[in-house]
Amino acid sequence: MATIVMLGAGIMATALSFPSSENGHDVRLVGTFLDREIIDSIQTTGIHPDLGLKVNDGVTAYQLEDAEKAFDGADVVMSGVNSFGVEWAGEQLARLIKPGQKFLCITKGMRADEDGTMHILPEVIRSYMDPELAESISWNAIVGPSIAGELAVHHDTAVVFCGENRDDAEYLADLFRTDYYHVWTSADFIGHETGAATKNIYAFAAGFAEGLLRKQGKADNKYVMYNYGAALFAQGQKELRSFVTLMGGNPETADGLGGVGDMFVTSMGGRNVKAGTLVGQGIPFSEVRDQHMKGVTLEGVAAIKVIGKALRPLTERGVIRPDEYPLCRFLYSVVEEDAPLDIPWDTFFADLA
Amino acid sequence: MATIVMLGAGIMATALSFPSSENGHDVRLVGTFLDREIIDSIQTTGIHPDLGLKVNDGVTAYQLEDAEKAFDGADVVMSGVNSFGVEWAGEQLARLIKPGQKFLCITKGMRADEDGTMHILPEVIRSYMDPELAESISWNAIVGPSIAGELAVHHDTAVVFCGENRDDAEYLADLFRTDYYHVWTSADFIGHETGAATKNIYAFAAGFAEGLLRKQGKADNKYVMYNYGAALFAQGQKELRSFVTLMGGNPETADGLGGVGDMFVTSMGGRNVKAGTLVGQGIPFSEVRDQHMKGVTLEGVAAIKVIGKALRPLTERGVIRPDEYPLCRFLYSVVEEDAPLDIPWDTFFADLA
Repeated sequence: MATIVMLGAGIMATALSFPSSENGHDVRLVGTFLDREIIDSIQTTGIHPDLGLKVNDGVTAYQLEDAEKAFDGADVVMSGVNSFGVEWAGEQLARLIKPGQKFLCITKGMRADEDGTMHILPEVIRSYMDPELAESISWNAIVGPSIAGELAVHHDTAVVFCGENRDDAEYLADLFRTDYYHVWTSADFIGHETGAATKNIYAFAAGFAEGLLRKQGKADNKYVMYNYGAALFAQGQKELRSFVTLMGGNPETADGLGGVGDMFVTSMGGRNVKAGTLVGQGIPFSEVRDQHMKGVTLEGVAAIKVIGKALRPLTERGVIRPDEYPLCRFLYSVVEEDAPLDIPWDTFFADLA
Repeated sequence: MATIVMLGAGIMATALSFPSSENGHDVRLVGTFLDREIIDSIQTTGIHPDLGLKVNDGVTAYQLEDAEKAFDGADVVMSGVNSFGVEWAGEQLARLIKPGQKFLCITKGMRADEDGTMHILPEVIRSYMDPELAESISWNAIVGPSIAGELAVHHDTAVVFCGENRDDAEYLADLFRTDYYHVWTSADFIGHETGAATKNIYAFAAGFAEGLLRKQGKADNKYVMYNYGAALFAQGQKELRSFVTLMGGNPETADGLGGVGDMFVTSMGGRNVKAGTLVGQGIPFSEVRDQHMKGVTLEGVAAIKVIGKALRPLTERGVIRPDEYPLCRFLYSVVEEDAPLDIPWDTFFADLA
């Protein structure tokens, strides 16, 4: 039996408590300062209010002030804090994590320096730690198409546990594998984390078609706009693969669960798609952000802002060509400059053999 | 102005008459022996009954017995006959096509020899012609995510015109390009035709999740099975890329409009997805074929039968490994042996780096 502690009691971390606790492990959910009511609810009724489900026996919830107790003796430390809180998570983990523990990251996203150099989130978290401590930790992440609620109700879910050390990833995978949670492992840590972060960019675009149809009063017509969505999806996949390659990952990772599989599931719905739909209806993104979806966590928009911004210095420095990533650049102009939805079709699919 | 003749008056050929006729070209639709009522309807009312739309002025419909008149003086000859009729189309075109005409294939599919060697459909059509005639023809095809009705109502559609000769593909693309029909060209003829044929295989699997939910009475639940569908989609994309490579195409073609883009749109609905849904509900495929969907054209199932069968001799001859294409092999067992829907998860994503 292993002890697994999760910082952040959101729906994804809590969903992962199902397969791990069913494998007999001691699972501890530690709420952030934003999760106070979630932890209260689990402690008193067992129910995670956002997930709408009762957690398993063997899952214990802790408020943040009890985090040290929760982390004590843990074999595995996970972070399920969303990407907006990654710096906060880095600070917390720097004081809570113990030498030799295995870290498993759930959060997806990217950070970039002024010169456009991009960093995956485990790297950001690591930067908050004493180098000797950081060196003693095993660094890993979960990627792949995982809608939290589906996993929590035991629907088949297939993912990749990736990390710097394949044996560690395999050890972690064994803690979670069940007959409904199918886990592969990979040593392409950077490639998988890049795919999982960049797929969110394109989920925002997946909402446009529905919005355009609504705007034209054609949402209930016999013929919708799947061709349009599929073209954006294909350009998105081309760019996702380029990002994986740019970051030093294995290009084939883009075809797998952490690449196209994750982009597919993210395009099927959720908050980013909804934001894209509102833009498709003709609402400037600034109005979507400040009114229609005020306060809603939009990981896709966050990824567009970080990565889309980084493309400019990367282009100036000659790291990438000006004709690369046209869809990501266009989406950046939509979310940062309220650009209207004139898809730059002519810039897509450059260099077709 | 060019003259474009289309053999087969199905919805896709007819949809393509919109951009081409709007560019001022003379477009002639020739019905097969199965299209008699369609041609009657267009001749008398202008309406294509399956599409539910009136064709443009400048589009003329011909019954099969008037085919020679329609082909006379044509610059471009197209085939929109479905894959089941490709041999028939080959015979017809062998007598109708004139030296030097440009051929543009719409039909998607594959044929295979006893030893598993696979052939794209333009190659099959070509085999019916006198070699000297065949040599004088320019061979091209249209691939990419195109739901016919969406194109016909002028929704943005992005495709690739591929062919042996890039200049010819570019000439053809120019005949069709409009502000809603976005056309790229490619000389990766075999890669694009392979992607477009194999994507149909995986569309059948895209229906399983909905069927499984219905069987369990969970189709209206809050949590559906997108994770499951996304995992199959990712394995499908891995196999699609392998097929493109196996056939000698450019692997990057798999990431584009004729690969993942087309697989995406085909997974969104249609007859193959519906057949997959029925299998997901627990109905053996033989019963779906003989009762529930009797007489319905299932291009995906046809692709599974041809390609899935070819995998066996290809494996025996050592051309491919036994652990390659596990999803396609499984789908073959579902459609040919009524295998139940036990997804062989453990066989997926082999060789993950």
